[in-house]
Amino acid sequence: MGATRYREIAESLRHAIRTGTYPLGSRLPSESDLSARWEVSRGTVRQAVALLASEGLIGSRQGARRVVLRQERRQSFQQLNSFAQWAQAMGCEVASRILTRTVRTATDEEAGRLDAEPGSEVLYVLRLRWLDGEPVMVERTVYAGWVAPAVLELPEDCVSIMDSIAERADIVAHYGEHLIDAVAAGSEDARLLRVRRASPLLRQRHLTYTAAGRAIEWTDDRYRAGSVVFNVMNSAGAAPLERRAGPDVRG
Amino acid sequence: MGATRYREIAESLRHAIRTGTYPLGSRLPSESDLSARWEVSRGTVRQAVALLASEGLIGSRQGARRVVLRQERRQSFQQLNSFAQWAQAMGCEVASRILTRTVRTATDEEAGRLDAEPGSEVLYVLRLRWLDGEPVMVERTVYAGWVAPAVLELPEDCVSIMDSIAERADIVAHYGEHLIDAVAAGSEDARLLRVRRASPLLRQRHLTYTAAGRAIEWTDDRYRAGSVVFNVMNSAGAAPLERRAGPDVRG
Repeated sequence: MGATRYREIAESLRHAIRTGTYPLGSRLPSESDLSARWEVSRGTVRQAVALLASEGLIGSRQGARRVVLRQERRQSFQQLNSFAQWAQAMGCEVASRILTRTVRTATDEEAGRLDAEPGSEVLYVLRLRWLDGEPVMVERTVYAGWVAPAVLELPEDCVSIMDSIAERADIVAHYGEHLIDAVAAGSEDARLLRVRRASPLLRQRHLTYTAAGRAIEWTDDRYRAGSVVFNVMNSAGAAPLERRAGPDVRG
Repeated sequence: MGATRYREIAESLRHAIRTGTYPLGSRLPSESDLSARWEVSRGTVRQAVALLASEGLIGSRQGARRVVLRQERRQSFQQLNSFAQWAQAMGCEVASRILTRTVRTATDEEAGRLDAEPGSEVLYVLRLRWLDGEPVMVERTVYAGWVAPAVLELPEDCVSIMDSIAERADIVAHYGEHLIDAVAAGSEDARLLRVRRASPLLRQRHLTYTAAGRAIEWTDDRYRAGSVVFNVMNSAGAAPLERRAGPDVRG
């Protein structure tokens, strides 16, 4: 009865959820039924169930039989941060090209976002991303000064900057704050993504921090409409998604 | 030393974070420093700190000094579900009008989303929402058949349908799955929101469930670009935000 027993139980429950033994909206058996079936303590069952809840597969309510909320495990933080990892997991062919790299003085907004001194140097990178040969995303990233050397030495067709700087320079993303809205394509967006000017783009801006809370990058990613959908699970117990007023409502 | 002691400590730490005693990116004092300062056990400090972590104010990493990630408490699940509660919390004047209510047969997609029998009846509601006198959102909701009677009896200027059916019929949202993308305004969108056809809209589709996992509604909300931004906090420990392929990449 090793410490990994609960993982085996979790994997078996995952399989049962995925294959429809426990369909969406149904309830898992009670803790006592599960502990009898697996011949383990209720504590072990609770660990397995907590793992599935953390993956968003089942509801997080304590003390009742858990409701099946989805059939597939949620993506990892790494898959959200890495466009390349995500695309490869979907089986898409992915390509990336750095179009420009510019060391320049941070604007006030950038310095504020990156918690850097006003007037300090940052690295601005313009990059285009393709899925299956189609350009789907324009990425405009401002890297904090301390990250710049690691990014400057990467080849222009580097598939994942986040993976590369983690491997080479031990700069590892641990937190991310994401702002998602819709914008009209500007002329540079339109040219790179091959869409009409003013057509809809899904914008994801994100600020990424290390585990110690140091800002790594502030990014503005613009996706062609129809290429990407963001998904968030919320519950009364954990509400990670917020709605904020945009610039047209509050400045 | 009541059971609410940790709440007082959490409130005091919240205040210190909000007023800049512990700025963004800084670390809270260690557990032993906090327990000495407050003359409480480390267990009590841990409860207070866990509460702030659940609100997204500080990092969720165990065992180290916690990093300050934001200054304001996150919105509640209720504020995300209720456009009216959210707008009022911002100090905006909010108005809503139900334009049409139609009882009809569910499409296959709707029946699938609501986990209803194919061909069962649903209630379709078209509604317009204003902030400070400006139309900012068109809401198209399909309510499950069992919810329809409670919605049919509401006045057309009902400010919050979710709050009203919770009060009147005890239909309470507990989980929500949200899909966020960008779309071009159709002709009905353009007319209602007073924007050009094909201009960018931020779309938030969501499926809302009761605590027992029963689907309440499947909604398509379209916001005028610039009126709203969605915000999500992710970490290596909890990654609620996912990127999915849109219809142009995978059908």
